[in-house]
Amino acid sequence: MNNRRYNHEKNSIIQPLLTDLYQITMAYAYWKSGKTKNYSVFDLFFRKNPFGGEFTIFAGLEECLKFLENFSYSRTDIEYLKQTLPSSVEESFFEYLSNLTAKDVKVYAIAEGSVVFPRVPLIRVEGPLIIVQLLETTLLTLVNYSSLVATNAARYRIVSGNVKLFECGLSRAQGPDGGLSASKYSYIGGLDATSNVLAGKWFGIPVQEVHAHNYLIPFNSFSELGDTFLEPKNGGQPRELLKLVLFWKDKLLNLFDERYNETEYGELAALISYALAFPDGFIALVDTGDVERSGLINFCAVALALNELGYRASGIRLTSGDLAYISKVAHSYFSKIKSKYNIPWFENLTIMATNDINEDTIISLNEQSHKINCFGIGPYLVTCQKQPALGCVYKLVELNNCPRLKLSQDPFKVTMPGSKEVYRLYSDSGYALVDLLQRSTEPAPKLHEKILCRHPLEESKRAYMMPVKVEKLLTLYWENGRIVQKLPSLKEIKEKVNNSLKALRSDIKRNMNPTPYKVAVSDELYQFIHDIWLKNAPIEELF
Amino acid sequence: MNNRRYNHEKNSIIQPLLTDLYQITMAYAYWKSGKTKNYSVFDLFFRKNPFGGEFTIFAGLEECLKFLENFSYSRTDIEYLKQTLPSSVEESFFEYLSNLTAKDVKVYAIAEGSVVFPRVPLIRVEGPLIIVQLLETTLLTLVNYSSLVATNAARYRIVSGNVKLFECGLSRAQGPDGGLSASKYSYIGGLDATSNVLAGKWFGIPVQEVHAHNYLIPFNSFSELGDTFLEPKNGGQPRELLKLVLFWKDKLLNLFDERYNETEYGELAALISYALAFPDGFIALVDTGDVERSGLINFCAVALALNELGYRASGIRLTSGDLAYISKVAHSYFSKIKSKYNIPWFENLTIMATNDINEDTIISLNEQSHKINCFGIGPYLVTCQKQPALGCVYKLVELNNCPRLKLSQDPFKVTMPGSKEVYRLYSDSGYALVDLLQRSTEPAPKLHEKILCRHPLEESKRAYMMPVKVEKLLTLYWENGRIVQKLPSLKEIKEKVNNSLKALRSDIKRNMNPTPYKVAVSDELYQFIHDIWLKNAPIEELF
Repeated sequence: MNNRRYNHEKNSIIQPLLTDLYQITMAYAYWKSGKTKNYSVFDLFFRKNPFGGEFTIFAGLEECLKFLENFSYSRTDIEYLKQTLPSSVEESFFEYLSNLTAKDVKVYAIAEGSVVFPRVPLIRVEGPLIIVQLLETTLLTLVNYSSLVATNAARYRIVSGNVKLFECGLSRAQGPDGGLSASKYSYIGGLDATSNVLAGKWFGIPVQEVHAHNYLIPFNSFSELGDTFLEPKNGGQPRELLKLVLFWKDKLLNLFDERYNETEYGELAALISYALAFPDGFIALVDTGDVERSGLINFCAVALALNELGYRASGIRLTSGDLAYISKVAHSYFSKIKSKYNIPWFENLTIMATNDINEDTIISLNEQSHKINCFGIGPYLVTCQKQPALGCVYKLVELNNCPRLKLSQDPFKVTMPGSKEVYRLYSDSGYALVDLLQRSTEPAPKLHEKILCRHPLEESKRAYMMPVKVEKLLTLYWENGRIVQKLPSLKEIKEKVNNSLKALRSDIKRNMNPTPYKVAVSDELYQFIHDIWLKNAPIEELF
Repeated sequence: MNNRRYNHEKNSIIQPLLTDLYQITMAYAYWKSGKTKNYSVFDLFFRKNPFGGEFTIFAGLEECLKFLENFSYSRTDIEYLKQTLPSSVEESFFEYLSNLTAKDVKVYAIAEGSVVFPRVPLIRVEGPLIIVQLLETTLLTLVNYSSLVATNAARYRIVSGNVKLFECGLSRAQGPDGGLSASKYSYIGGLDATSNVLAGKWFGIPVQEVHAHNYLIPFNSFSELGDTFLEPKNGGQPRELLKLVLFWKDKLLNLFDERYNETEYGELAALISYALAFPDGFIALVDTGDVERSGLINFCAVALALNELGYRASGIRLTSGDLAYISKVAHSYFSKIKSKYNIPWFENLTIMATNDINEDTIISLNEQSHKINCFGIGPYLVTCQKQPALGCVYKLVELNNCPRLKLSQDPFKVTMPGSKEVYRLYSDSGYALVDLLQRSTEPAPKLHEKILCRHPLEESKRAYMMPVKVEKLLTLYWENGRIVQKLPSLKEIKEKVNNSLKALRSDIKRNMNPTPYKVAVSDELYQFIHDIWLKNAPIEELF
């Protein structure tokens, strides 16, 4: 993780104009109506967990804070806005925008990498109405996809157990930075590595080598190999790898009772050529032709030849066919070789699968007792095929110390007014039991004291709880134009995801019919909200 | 479209390290085995149209060419690669990479914005094996999403007829540039505008104003308005807008036989405040409360008051509820006012809907004879919910003048070897009938001569065709390190999409059970391919 030095290379797209036009027209209307300095509080939250699950990983906070640091309209931004807004917009508004920064804004947020739930404010932004409103679209853009893909990765991790997982979706991602963000947030969500080199360089994520189809195509025969002499790992006389490989191949054809066939020369030539370049950690795609009769034998012959020279192969890659079956065949070949030639590590060779893997494929492969020990996950992970968008929203909840709410004909869309705090309450089992929302003015819940937790909408749903641990979730991250917390490294955020999920009961995390986690409100907040709802909701006529 | 001057602000993410690690390890293995200068030909193509449709829009070409222009590993790139690749990799390989550019590469491509079909090479890249292989991942990243979202937009355009469509998906897009690319390629695919300001600035796309929920929340009563004097559009004594609005509101309540109610003051105050900022082109969200009893009447009162001062309102925005029904109610209000007060344009006010619209919603609304004349399309468009990834691939088809192919156990995945040309053949109806692939060495098909078109896989499927127009699809775009064609503007690419789709029969473009478009091979290419397939495919044992 020593790659912080490359971090100055940032995404130039993240800037104040990366927003919807209505944010700027709204700003002008507020400015005209004298609301510029009204002190406002906004909540950023979502209403529904993605992927039919019952949890979400919160991510993207660091990028939000970096956006605030750099928030400033350039000269050409102002020039463009002048062309674009109606000519009636007053000149002094543009002067106001030219000097606008995020210095008067305060940002409270939940720690990046935390597991979070519907209706809980992930970020609370406070400050003068205009600037706080102007942040909306960009903050949503930065949180929505980051959190979505981190959550997706966490789900893959949960169904995969301890198998190695790496992300390899760049070529089909939604644009260059859709790919780059996917690599970053998949890693924090639970994957071990990525094949994306830029993600390795910028974020210090381990990059994973695979072996590609295209490499096999240029090779037809051994005549294309030229000199195949390879020096043993620990020095000494170079030996001809081709000869060694052919020697081992004959032995293996005997061992596995297979016949020579016509197609495998090109494949074998390609593998030898690759082994000459990467004798240590040799990895090979084995299913271009027939896996059992050609690919596996060719791979093992090369691996055994390399072994004679002191090199240890890494394993094979599978990309098609019946993955569970083939992985079991491969494992049986490796076991047989291990026993026959007494090479213990041969049984632990990587069996990597990368064929459009998704969550359901992994579950199905598990049921078939596959022997894959490494999955490369591409488009299903990075484009979040099951649900490609998260629906965070950003709502005004307080203005000049008065609670505000958005009414809607749909009760699901009504917001919770007022500035709020969130506490996560833990039981003595160590599990998080409930997220409790309170008014910001209420004292924090006390340890070992009975606390009434109410359902925010249904009057009759109430429960007492005695927490053995109380965690305050919202912390101040931004004040006076500066980040006021030490930001965690990517690895620390990854750890946070891991620990945060560990504190969640497994029935909440499971793939099939998960149990919803409880988000409750304090009695005071319940009364407060319902008073305001009643005051503001129209009284309908019965007839 | 005078925004070319902002074009130097580019996406810093698009660079040679935005690739999979195996591209670089492959490059090293080629380098080691002396294949560096082998002359290679790669085809970039897809195998299946997205969204269950039968056509695709090809997009992203300009970005690919810009990537080639800038292709060069930086000092820190090399430094990072040295840390990351095995220590056995030779120093002189890194020197080789340091000096590598795309100057020896040739790129042939179909014009950006063309309608394209499965198995047709969209881009043919030729040159020394290593550099051409190193381009793979980045080219795929740049073509896949651009083409996917342009195709999606074209589909929305087809089901919407002439209704105005704008893109507003930034906040839920897959990352900042997922959002920016969506705005750009939705526009070329058939949308009219975007709400994304940066897309407006960088690409000259018209930006669309809407009116947001959050604007309504801060207003409770008229007391928050302050001074509401507004000067008439053509000058003269300012008049008090609030008074005028209340006057019109009374009239309307009579006209529509509605009662005053309690909730609409805040809404009305917000609308008046917005009208004071944007008296011309006034647009208002009308469904925060009850649309019929409050929102519509409030909007019309403000629009009529503005009309008295010489300003013309733009229309309303709907975000929830039964959109077809409400749009019809709104239209009936507008018609009634038009007739009663003799204001012809009132009937043509914009009725904008933005509630998670997708292709199917529009089809369903059409069946209900909605009166919406403007759709704002968000996450379903930009994240391509129906299918969030396109599967373009990049395959070696020729090396040192010898055809190459990728074999696979799956016939669908077998590639067509050899360098090929593509011709689009038109019938006298003006429609494109077939895309014909030929070997690059064959003469072009002649006008008015009988041409045998064969199915690439099924021997018995053949047809004669006499084209009245023959269009050569692949053109040289990149040679000697330079772009050698004048690149079209975004607007020209948009025109290309439009014309290209016009030349396609409507049964191919329809949403439900579309007819597949024919992609054929010449007799010579058919023989050539099948000879090679037979030579290379393993002969299976029957028993």
